[in-house]
Amino acid sequence: MLKRYLLAPGPTPVPSEVLLSMAAPIIHHRSPDFLPVLDSAKKGLQWLYQTKNEVLILSSTGTGGMVGSVNNFFNKGDKVLVINGGKFGERWTKICQAYGLAVEEIIVEWGYSVRPEDVEEKLKKDKGIKGVFVQASETSTGVYHDIKNLGSIVKKHGDTLFIVDAISALVAHDLKTDEWGIDIMVGGSQKGVMLPPGIAFVSVSEKAWAKAETSKMPRFYFNFRKERENLAKNQTNFTSPVTLIIGLNESLRMLQAEGLENVFRRHEMLADATRKAVRAIGLELYPKGSPSNSVTAIMTPPGIDGQAVYKNLREKYGITAAGGQDKAKGKIFRIAHLGYSDRFDVIIAIAGIEMVLKGMGYPVKLGTGVAVAQELLMV
Amino acid sequence: MLKRYLLAPGPTPVPSEVLLSMAAPIIHHRSPDFLPVLDSAKKGLQWLYQTKNEVLILSSTGTGGMVGSVNNFFNKGDKVLVINGGKFGERWTKICQAYGLAVEEIIVEWGYSVRPEDVEEKLKKDKGIKGVFVQASETSTGVYHDIKNLGSIVKKHGDTLFIVDAISALVAHDLKTDEWGIDIMVGGSQKGVMLPPGIAFVSVSEKAWAKAETSKMPRFYFNFRKERENLAKNQTNFTSPVTLIIGLNESLRMLQAEGLENVFRRHEMLADATRKAVRAIGLELYPKGSPSNSVTAIMTPPGIDGQAVYKNLREKYGITAAGGQDKAKGKIFRIAHLGYSDRFDVIIAIAGIEMVLKGMGYPVKLGTGVAVAQELLMV
Repeated sequence: MLKRYLLAPGPTPVPSEVLLSMAAPIIHHRSPDFLPVLDSAKKGLQWLYQTKNEVLILSSTGTGGMVGSVNNFFNKGDKVLVINGGKFGERWTKICQAYGLAVEEIIVEWGYSVRPEDVEEKLKKDKGIKGVFVQASETSTGVYHDIKNLGSIVKKHGDTLFIVDAISALVAHDLKTDEWGIDIMVGGSQKGVMLPPGIAFVSVSEKAWAKAETSKMPRFYFNFRKERENLAKNQTNFTSPVTLIIGLNESLRMLQAEGLENVFRRHEMLADATRKAVRAIGLELYPKGSPSNSVTAIMTPPGIDGQAVYKNLREKYGITAAGGQDKAKGKIFRIAHLGYSDRFDVIIAIAGIEMVLKGMGYPVKLGTGVAVAQELLMV
Repeated sequence: MLKRYLLAPGPTPVPSEVLLSMAAPIIHHRSPDFLPVLDSAKKGLQWLYQTKNEVLILSSTGTGGMVGSVNNFFNKGDKVLVINGGKFGERWTKICQAYGLAVEEIIVEWGYSVRPEDVEEKLKKDKGIKGVFVQASETSTGVYHDIKNLGSIVKKHGDTLFIVDAISALVAHDLKTDEWGIDIMVGGSQKGVMLPPGIAFVSVSEKAWAKAETSKMPRFYFNFRKERENLAKNQTNFTSPVTLIIGLNESLRMLQAEGLENVFRRHEMLADATRKAVRAIGLELYPKGSPSNSVTAIMTPPGIDGQAVYKNLREKYGITAAGGQDKAKGKIFRIAHLGYSDRFDVIIAIAGIEMVLKGMGYPVKLGTGVAVAQELLMV
């Protein structure tokens, strides 16, 4: 027997309350049954997003939300700036290029946060940049980019849109959509929102809707103006993912019961304990910049393969963490503390890492990191 | 938010696989649908009990199985010997007395295992003793009684029946029903078998069935001869708890996949790690005799109230352990490692105990016990 622990940065564990809510009979998305369900979900998302803007709900992964954030607001040949500091930064570039945008990149070394002054310099130099794309939490490197600061910089530059992939940051980080000038912010269900994969959320500012008026990109599925029209009637453009939206209401209810500030504090506490515990056993964090509160990327010590750490955690101890991606593959492994995550998830992660590393010959004194985490997690 | 961990000696956690199996539509207990379900369950229980005897399935708690073990095999005034070393030993006495049996007790000091020679002496002195009642694991004290040895002693004394309450021991301890001469053995669903509360199991030897022929006690609900007749037809005497029996098949499937020896080894490993970890933080075990592999009873240090430890574990950390009962109340708290329990349940328990005790002013160095458990639980 091997009990399983899901400590990956998505999908994340789904609470029983949410799973049970989703076991209710299917309702029809064009029937009156569904209207209050979507109404409640859209209001809840506005609360979570800290926005007065509409938050669209799409039947897709987070990447679908990213695609829609490109092809609804720009035109072929538009110049945009992508902050590319990891696998998901790169994805912004690929999507923008797939739609024929002229992409300028700020290449950020993996593990670092973008320097806001670099963005400011680019925008000052080139007034033609129509959008700035960034991740809040870059899942591949465990790095947080300074969204507040970046938002205030973009805001100063006329009608340039500020587009944030918050897929893995939402819930774990305080992201003040309206106050910080985030025009478009993408979220996904299988991360902090504690749902199965399958829906994406996108908030859109008035400034962005104005740009949407002039965008002539080919689109059919991710047609945000149609989604907006439908949302006003508590509908979605195509078949609504009714079960996931019912589950979303339950997870929003849980988050509201906890309180947004407490939710952020919990994630910060868990992330902080994870980072300090990991350092206490002599490991280095991969992020040199600001670390994400969603996921901790840990450098494997010399001579130890990060993929083997991942494999041992999973096969010997039942812990599904994440390895490294692309250029970080083998060099790091990643532990999430995102969504339905509490004190003992950190304890399990640290205890498991210690046991795996010791088993691989790394000189760790068992309990060292756990003790640090315990200290920080005491009530 | 507070994630919940159920580490009490029953009810114990139910695996998702079992919960999901029980979510299937209700079938009718007198329809052909049910026959293979009960057939499979009764064979699985024989495997688990290591017996060729029938294992009856009763719609009741374990106590119902205990009552039936008294009122189906004896007559008013029969002399029986009860080994009373805790709250559940006392329950045997109370049940026997309720049915007018002449109870002799061996009072075993709480925390100790019975000395088999004391039982042998009693049986030698009094040939009229018709049954010997004992617990395998005495849940209230965390003590294991030496069933193998006791069985061989009772076997030597003619037609005296050997009746074992294995409610909290089944699955955690190797109990060889036939080989060890256990005539009647009671189990319950909400312990090692990883089911919700609601069904009891009772194995009955041919020797016991022979005694049942002459038993004239009043009985209607726990009528074992009727249950036996029904079981032969894959039925139960009254309405069958169909959902729990469906779940039982799934939990038996899981236990069979693991293998009986591995199941016992896992429980021994978890119990051993718990005991050694607890001692490493300077705490004493309550059992002076042989400890149970189902539950560890821990003495609270001087000046610290066991009930407060229980309360803090639960309210601050979401861990439901157990306090002490009756004369052990306040002096001990108990942590189970029974049924659906794995390495990190022990880690959670020990980490939580350390944090609670430190929070209550007990001088524990965090991580001390956890490290001992980690060492013993490494793969």
